[in-house]
Amino acid sequence: MVEGSKETLTNDHHGWLKAKAWKLHKKMVELLNNATKVGKDDPRRIVHSLKLGLAITTVSLFFYFEPLYDGLGASSIWAIITVVVVFEFSVGATLGKGMNRAIATLIAGAIGFGAHYITSFTGNIWHPILLGILIYTISATASYCRFFPKLKAKYDYGLLIFILTFNMVALSGFRDDEILKLAWHRLANILVGAFIAVAICIFVRPVWAGADLHQFVATNIENLGTFLEGFGIEYFGACQGEMVGGGNVMKYRSVLCSKQNEEALAYQATWEPPHGKFRLCHPWKQYQKIGTLSRDCAYCFEILNLYLNTDQIQLPLEIQRQYQEQCVQVCIESSKALKAMAKALRDIVPPALAKSHIEIAKKTAGELKLLLASSHFHGDMNMVSTTTLILLLIDSFSCVEKIVDSIHELVSLARLNTALQKSDVTPTEQKGSGDKASSQPHHIVTIAQSQFAE
Amino acid sequence: MVEGSKETLTNDHHGWLKAKAWKLHKKMVELLNNATKVGKDDPRRIVHSLKLGLAITTVSLFFYFEPLYDGLGASSIWAIITVVVVFEFSVGATLGKGMNRAIATLIAGAIGFGAHYITSFTGNIWHPILLGILIYTISATASYCRFFPKLKAKYDYGLLIFILTFNMVALSGFRDDEILKLAWHRLANILVGAFIAVAICIFVRPVWAGADLHQFVATNIENLGTFLEGFGIEYFGACQGEMVGGGNVMKYRSVLCSKQNEEALAYQATWEPPHGKFRLCHPWKQYQKIGTLSRDCAYCFEILNLYLNTDQIQLPLEIQRQYQEQCVQVCIESSKALKAMAKALRDIVPPALAKSHIEIAKKTAGELKLLLASSHFHGDMNMVSTTTLILLLIDSFSCVEKIVDSIHELVSLARLNTALQKSDVTPTEQKGSGDKASSQPHHIVTIAQSQFAE
Repeated sequence: MVEGSKETLTNDHHGWLKAKAWKLHKKMVELLNNATKVGKDDPRRIVHSLKLGLAITTVSLFFYFEPLYDGLGASSIWAIITVVVVFEFSVGATLGKGMNRAIATLIAGAIGFGAHYITSFTGNIWHPILLGILIYTISATASYCRFFPKLKAKYDYGLLIFILTFNMVALSGFRDDEILKLAWHRLANILVGAFIAVAICIFVRPVWAGADLHQFVATNIENLGTFLEGFGIEYFGACQGEMVGGGNVMKYRSVLCSKQNEEALAYQATWEPPHGKFRLCHPWKQYQKIGTLSRDCAYCFEILNLYLNTDQIQLPLEIQRQYQEQCVQVCIESSKALKAMAKALRDIVPPALAKSHIEIAKKTAGELKLLLASSHFHGDMNMVSTTTLILLLIDSFSCVEKIVDSIHELVSLARLNTALQKSDVTPTEQKGSGDKASSQPHHIVTIAQSQFAE
Repeated sequence: MVEGSKETLTNDHHGWLKAKAWKLHKKMVELLNNATKVGKDDPRRIVHSLKLGLAITTVSLFFYFEPLYDGLGASSIWAIITVVVVFEFSVGATLGKGMNRAIATLIAGAIGFGAHYITSFTGNIWHPILLGILIYTISATASYCRFFPKLKAKYDYGLLIFILTFNMVALSGFRDDEILKLAWHRLANILVGAFIAVAICIFVRPVWAGADLHQFVATNIENLGTFLEGFGIEYFGACQGEMVGGGNVMKYRSVLCSKQNEEALAYQATWEPPHGKFRLCHPWKQYQKIGTLSRDCAYCFEILNLYLNTDQIQLPLEIQRQYQEQCVQVCIESSKALKAMAKALRDIVPPALAKSHIEIAKKTAGELKLLLASSHFHGDMNMVSTTTLILLLIDSFSCVEKIVDSIHELVSLARLNTALQKSDVTPTEQKGSGDKASSQPHHIVTIAQSQFAE
């Protein structure tokens, strides 16, 4: 009996262990799958991790023979801290953080030394009081500055480091000559750390925020094009045979929330030296303009998408025949124009075919409006719903037109910039191309309405 | 002649100085205006700066009599670094950063000590090689983990501190007993710094991320309501006398890009202890759900807004008379429902009047659809454009309905949570109210279409 229960206990224990092991095994597999997915989504992430490891190991071995926490109070530790904190994914982010840190350290060090020097002349009673007032005032002011939108966008990290360094220097209990020696040691260590971080970031398979932004905006434009193509095919059933993948069609949704990412990349790109196709003073701000227009277009698509998602709305065959051809043409030609523009943007070359696609789409949209204006609706709600859809489609096309114009402008600016830096072009040409581009955009509804008035 | 030119020079110099002084004066005034604006926009920013100053001064004076960079290698510096780095605007952000820092430091310290201890048994040749391999592997792995979406959202800062601390401990050139002494000193200093930062953050006019999120979402709902009210009045000219401010109407646009802010606040709120109206386990995630629905609604409004912005589109009086009453009623009742819900959300009380407003709006929307279905459009483009508008309005109303439902759900969850913590309610009631709330939402177009089919 006792042996039996013992056996049961052992069996239970075995079962429990087995279940635990199985659970652990499942968790490990899930973790591994996750890790593989993160790497597959963007293989540069793996490279980045290896690069950071390399940077830290390099700076570590550099200091291996001069043990940390030795000599002048742990100066060499700052080289490691600098590498870990400054090393970011893209070159622009690394340079931005590095410059912020270096400049803030220098300024704060100087002011902190000044505060320390001035208060050191006062007596034992006044010294802590004066120092306290200085620390309070300067810390609070610098902290308040972090709320200024312009400073926050570019120098938030610098202000943090300023507060940190200022207090560290002002509070140090050293004599003046010691402080200068310490400052020199620390600065040298920070420079070594920053140099190693920046060098590895730039020279070992660099990731350029500028190139990323360029790619990101171009991909977004392409996704908008894919949606229009898919919408034309799926909704109006242009060619039932060749369906586009549902997942690809929905990719435009990432455009809706692209603002933050674009802003961050555009900020980082301004810190980067010329690289690849991108010369000094590349018009990075224009990308944000295109981004805003893309989002406006995506908002339109959100409404169109409602029509796509509900199976109940099916056009009666009669109506379908009446408008199908024109609607599909507007969708397909707009989509082709967007895709051509995305390609032109990618290569920074003047778009070859986009113009003609836009012309065809524009002509067809005009025809659609005339067709709508001449048709008689006898209280048919399906027809009303279709009209809504068609007018939304025309609105979307106007958005597409604006995007095409602003990419045109960007490409001309970028090419002019390149040409100017090769000193081949006179500045008058710049003005001309800018005017030409900016004279094209129109307001969405203005177009639609001006044609209604005709 | 020479004297004359000298006089001219002095005059020039005076003029130059004057111009410079004037420019400087103008810049100073601009800076002052900016500073005043930043403070006026959110007076808590001024309080935050003063609080940070207080925290740093407190920790500084605490250590004034024990000079920095003394004894065991600059340990007391970590109290100041901790305060500066951990002290954030809201309690949740401060606690989140503080916890991340504390836990990461402990884990990294232990692993770093282990690495140091194990490699110290190897010879002079193998020691740096083994240490290098360990540092490389662990740094690269931790850096790779920062790309995991779940870890990035919650523990990004912790992983950074882990890499930092691990390397600092593993590379220290101390003997084992010294390392433990150092670790203890540093930990004590970090705890003092963190304690001062958290205490001042919580007890001196605290800013709660949870309360901010609550207010933010409620204000967004209110802004959506204001737009609908303004749209009804301005577009359909309900009561020409009382116009709503144009600026207020456009406030809904801030909803379009609210995602990032909501996510950050919701993350911070989860770190906060119960405060004010918010009990433990307040349903913070539900706010993000409401936020998503609000953005969907704002996308609809973007299209409606196109109609508002173009002066060319003016409804002919005849059509206006036909639909005016119903359209205005849908707008006004939806707006009232949203505002009632925003108020209910603010006070976390069951909404009293929202239901009846929604009922009226729903009935009117049904009437509008019937009216549209029975009217005859004889190729009148203005009529077609109006139909589009009215159908968009009905779609917007469906969005509003969904928002109202999800706020209802949030309020019941929050009240149930409060009640449960007072042990007054049984868990069965929770299920009931959840079911009731989730059974209400419908899909925008499904509603519209099911009525079309009738």
